[in-house]
Amino acid sequence: MDMPGPTPIEAIDLKTTTRDETIDITSLVRQVVKKLGVDAGICYVYCPHTTAGLTLQENSDPDVKKDLLAQLARMVPRDAGFVHSEDNSDAHIKGSLVGSSLSIPIEKGKLLLGTWQAVFFCEFDGPRSRKVLVKVIAG
Amino acid sequence: MDMPGPTPIEAIDLKTTTRDETIDITSLVRQVVKKLGVDAGICYVYCPHTTAGLTLQENSDPDVKKDLLAQLARMVPRDAGFVHSEDNSDAHIKGSLVGSSLSIPIEKGKLLLGTWQAVFFCEFDGPRSRKVLVKVIAG
Amino acid sequence: MDMPGPTPIEAIDLKTTTRDETIDITSLVRQVVKKLGVDAGICYVYCPHTTAGLTLQENSDPDVKKDLLAQLARMVPRDAGFVHSEDNSDAHIKGSLVGSSLSIPIEKGKLLLGTWQAVFFCEFDGPRSRKVLVKVIAG
Repeated sequence: MDMPGPTPIEAIDLKTTTRDETIDITSLVRQVVKKLGVDAGICYVYCPHTTAGLTLQENSDPDVKKDLLAQLARMVPRDAGFVHSEDNSDAHIKGSLVGSSLSIPIEKGKLLLGTWQAVFFCEFDGPRSRKVLVKVIAG
Repeated sequence: MDMPGPTPIEAIDLKTTTRDETIDITSLVRQVVKKLGVDAGICYVYCPHTTAGLTLQENSDPDVKKDLLAQLARMVPRDAGFVHSEDNSDAHIKGSLVGSSLSIPIEKGKLLLGTWQAVFFCEFDGPRSRKVLVKVIAG
Repeated sequence: MDMPGPTPIEAIDLKTTTRDETIDITSLVRQVVKKLGVDAGICYVYCPHTTAGLTLQENSDPDVKKDLLAQLARMVPRDAGFVHSEDNSDAHIKGSLVGSSLSIPIEKGKLLLGTWQAVFFCEFDGPRSRKVLVKVIAG
């Protein structure tokens, strides 16, 4: 059986509006997967920024996102005595804790997200123009 | 050279017995890899839940797992003043910190885990019935 | 269209010189990608150790790396009262927080790192001889 050729990398453009925020990009990622038409494989969601990240979390109760941002701010306070001069070391560290990429299985052309899972872009040093890359590997 | 076709996604069913616990699922993941018969590629282990996670850690000394759970509880206390009403925001946040998926290389049909590495499912809001998905990409 | 066969797994050998340190391995990972000659796909960088990790972070200001290590030490103090007897539970926990693998898209034969992103090996229990595995999946 022949496999399909490489799929192109797609970019999702975002505009964040505050310093700390989460943006649900699930429907945008689903659109890319649908457009690429891959039946089975892995969908990678990739954040090319160092003061932001990606996570899978619940979106039915918006309080979960608030609690996540508030707890990250308690764990990594902005004024913790950092030496980096741009006043955003907290944002870099939160990015490393949350992580820069997600890998989600695809079956029958659809993302196999759990019932409560949504794909969140996490802004830690906004507002900014941001980009998320989506790459699908068939297999 | 032709590549093999897509491999099916396999599910591992788990029952957790306490609120916080780690379960070593290494042998279950190895069984899936063996069953799928893929010689070279990547094995994805995926957690479709938002109050649990996956990590690679040492399993030779069980104290390491205890220390991990205890430290996560100190970093993300259950009573940190969260707004989400289900009393499990700590579990959601721990899930985002630990992460929802693992990618492990496969060579000669075997997981390339390091000497001390084991695959752990991390329960943060049990006891519950849980599922872990395993997807192998050949290549 | 035929896809290329599996690519071999390449190992990068490292020597760390202190207990806590970050090593920029971006150019070493780029060399592997170039050598393998894969035009499009995903590059996995994998850490087979349980007291170390991998992260994508900024390398232009070395203070960011210092701030990251200092904050991780505040969040996971070495003397937090751990039970594991080897005096390195903090290192294990930091490894689980930072994560053991990275997935970076490849396009036109090149890693699609963001402008400020570099690949860092994070040593949490050195000095030691360490290894990082690189596996490329075409697609």
